[in-house]
Amino acid sequence: MLLQKTQGDLEKLRSVGPLVHNITNYVVMNNTANALLAIGASPIMAHAIEEVEEMVSISQCLVINIGTLSASWLEAMTRASAKAKELDKPIVLDPVGAGASQFRIQAIRKILEKGPPSIIRGNASEIISTAQDSAGGKGVDATDSSQAAITQAKLLSERYGSVVVVSGEVDYVVFGKEHHSIHQGHPLMTKVTGMGCTATAICGAFAAIQPNFAQAAFSAMAVMGIAGEMAAEEAKGPGTFQSVFLDKLFHLTSSEIQDRWKSN
Amino acid sequence: MLLQKTQGDLEKLRSVGPLVHNITNYVVMNNTANALLAIGASPIMAHAIEEVEEMVSISQCLVINIGTLSASWLEAMTRASAKAKELDKPIVLDPVGAGASQFRIQAIRKILEKGPPSIIRGNASEIISTAQDSAGGKGVDATDSSQAAITQAKLLSERYGSVVVVSGEVDYVVFGKEHHSIHQGHPLMTKVTGMGCTATAICGAFAAIQPNFAQAAFSAMAVMGIAGEMAAEEAKGPGTFQSVFLDKLFHLTSSEIQDRWKSN
Amino acid sequence: MLLQKTQGDLEKLRSVGPLVHNITNYVVMNNTANALLAIGASPIMAHAIEEVEEMVSISQCLVINIGTLSASWLEAMTRASAKAKELDKPIVLDPVGAGASQFRIQAIRKILEKGPPSIIRGNASEIISTAQDSAGGKGVDATDSSQAAITQAKLLSERYGSVVVVSGEVDYVVFGKEHHSIHQGHPLMTKVTGMGCTATAICGAFAAIQPNFAQAAFSAMAVMGIAGEMAAEEAKGPGTFQSVFLDKLFHLTSSEIQDRWKSN
Repeated sequence: MLLQKTQGDLEKLRSVGPLVHNITNYVVMNNTANALLAIGASPIMAHAIEEVEEMVSISQCLVINIGTLSASWLEAMTRASAKAKELDKPIVLDPVGAGASQFRIQAIRKILEKGPPSIIRGNASEIISTAQDSAGGKGVDATDSSQAAITQAKLLSERYGSVVVVSGEVDYVVFGKEHHSIHQGHPLMTKVTGMGCTATAICGAFAAIQPNFAQAAFSAMAVMGIAGEMAAEEAKGPGTFQSVFLDKLFHLTSSEIQDRWKSN
Repeated sequence: MLLQKTQGDLEKLRSVGPLVHNITNYVVMNNTANALLAIGASPIMAHAIEEVEEMVSISQCLVINIGTLSASWLEAMTRASAKAKELDKPIVLDPVGAGASQFRIQAIRKILEKGPPSIIRGNASEIISTAQDSAGGKGVDATDSSQAAITQAKLLSERYGSVVVVSGEVDYVVFGKEHHSIHQGHPLMTKVTGMGCTATAICGAFAAIQPNFAQAAFSAMAVMGIAGEMAAEEAKGPGTFQSVFLDKLFHLTSSEIQDRWKSN
Repeated sequence: MLLQKTQGDLEKLRSVGPLVHNITNYVVMNNTANALLAIGASPIMAHAIEEVEEMVSISQCLVINIGTLSASWLEAMTRASAKAKELDKPIVLDPVGAGASQFRIQAIRKILEKGPPSIIRGNASEIISTAQDSAGGKGVDATDSSQAAITQAKLLSERYGSVVVVSGEVDYVVFGKEHHSIHQGHPLMTKVTGMGCTATAICGAFAAIQPNFAQAAFSAMAVMGIAGEMAAEEAKGPGTFQSVFLDKLFHLTSSEIQDRWKSN
């Protein structure tokens, strides 16, 4: 059921070409903009306090990523979030490096309060930190078990009404007490910076055209994983992987999604 | 006539290796720096208010791109523009997302007043907005007809004495009441972020060595289009396109320019 | 002796996976993060004044690169440097564009005073400017002779107790009155933006696991040069070079290092 909707939603995404407004980190801006174009969306990258509310108004989704956060960017993020809530537009949050500093802990708290996200996506460590507001973990890397993360993701989901995605060898899409798992992807994806951030942006692209955010997150992670494993089979390492990944995302067909899918 | 000069100017560009100072957006900095290196120029990327005037002084051209604008960057842009005017150095402006927010409308007005650009390059929507100071359009995407854009480009050109480039399926180089058209390029170029910004930077590279700015803009757009279509023929999608495009730009020969040229 | 340690240190680097904290420029953030991942390290990119000290605390090395400097980033760099000194963690400095503006001259002076680096890496022009505090050179390009640079590098090394790397056709690792030379690499590397910045980041990766900083710098430059020449043999230009370079860095073996090494 979920996977069939992924195929239809990918088609819809490509025909609609939704505007996705990203306030994201410097490291991945280029990659995520290109991934959004490859999947069929239209990226806006804008962070000025003077204009973020207008950009939210013309977009179909807001993606917030705190990777290279600073005070002025945080202000832009909370303003944009509040505007998106006011206009009832989906918000996707990537709590990069959650728990790595007091600044990030406070920042995530503020963003969650201003506009509870439709989808929160992070690795196990980030999701646990976001749920627990507790420092720990090894920077932006995943260090915690996925079981602990699923438990915390469920608490987080219930508190904010958000769909929570825990990325890892297996991806989990958590909503309330339920969760779905996605067994796609490839280890090479962990050797490329910003693949998680790209997954978050792709969640935003699907959320822009699919109001069932659990379905949107599921489709995004399925598409990421399938394009990722197809790219890894052709690439000779993490460098060529990046180019081939965008090609695969761009050309991905319904039958590839169907054929590649691993039910567990 | 124009195309023959392109061949000579590309040779000159490669032998001179002009310094091109870019105050540009975060998304495309890496791409544009690499495109400038590939075509034979030497990029400077610097935006601090404390140093932009000195950077203008040692450069042969200033490129301003408002893609991820903020108040402090705008201040740097207007200071750099004023300095470039004072020193009679070419200025190239890319009004990314013109009309998408009041902030951008005001910003473009300020930049145009401080230092009327030698060349302004944008898509149809951006050029129309820049000419009309009117909000509208679909963010940073082109939505308006090229005929309307040419009309507005001529008005813009006459008002500021700038050469105006309207990018699209066909590129138009407008100066005063005249315009030239360039029928090169490939649709895949619209699926890669920052190809427009790269075109703008390449305009800067040619303007650094060719004081006839209509010729410089023409050469830049011809070279972009030809390298783009060569890359699209080899690439398997928008990811590999980016790598191959830089290779093509780097190796582009006079005979390839000659052979590939479509007169209409 | 030095080269054998490179092989062992590369193995150690891959098994330890040290956290390398980068406060670097916008142009190269993506490349350097990917190069750090490819060589086996784990990058942190964070610059907010509110959190840089915490990020230094959880990292094994601090890399500072002044490429797209501004006043607030400089403040973050000096705070991070002071913290790294306090915690006795290695600092690697890349004085990009040294001498190109008064702002950079002052900035480098401040950074050197706050926390004398373990390693300073630049091209001949940058090292000479850093040593002489004198404006000159052609922006971020190398213009000065390597002999003059070695002389200045020795003075700089003695003044701050730093290992100084002069990058160029031949790379020199200077410590006090001694220096080693590395005859690897390929001219294509100068046609890709940020290869120098990548070398600096890789110096940081080795310094994180090798307390003999001359050895760390030597290993980093050897690995960069060897991966670079392997990539250049396969690449068709500067675009494909970037992808292949990361692949080569990722797969680089001890025997490739051994076989490729040119003793002069």
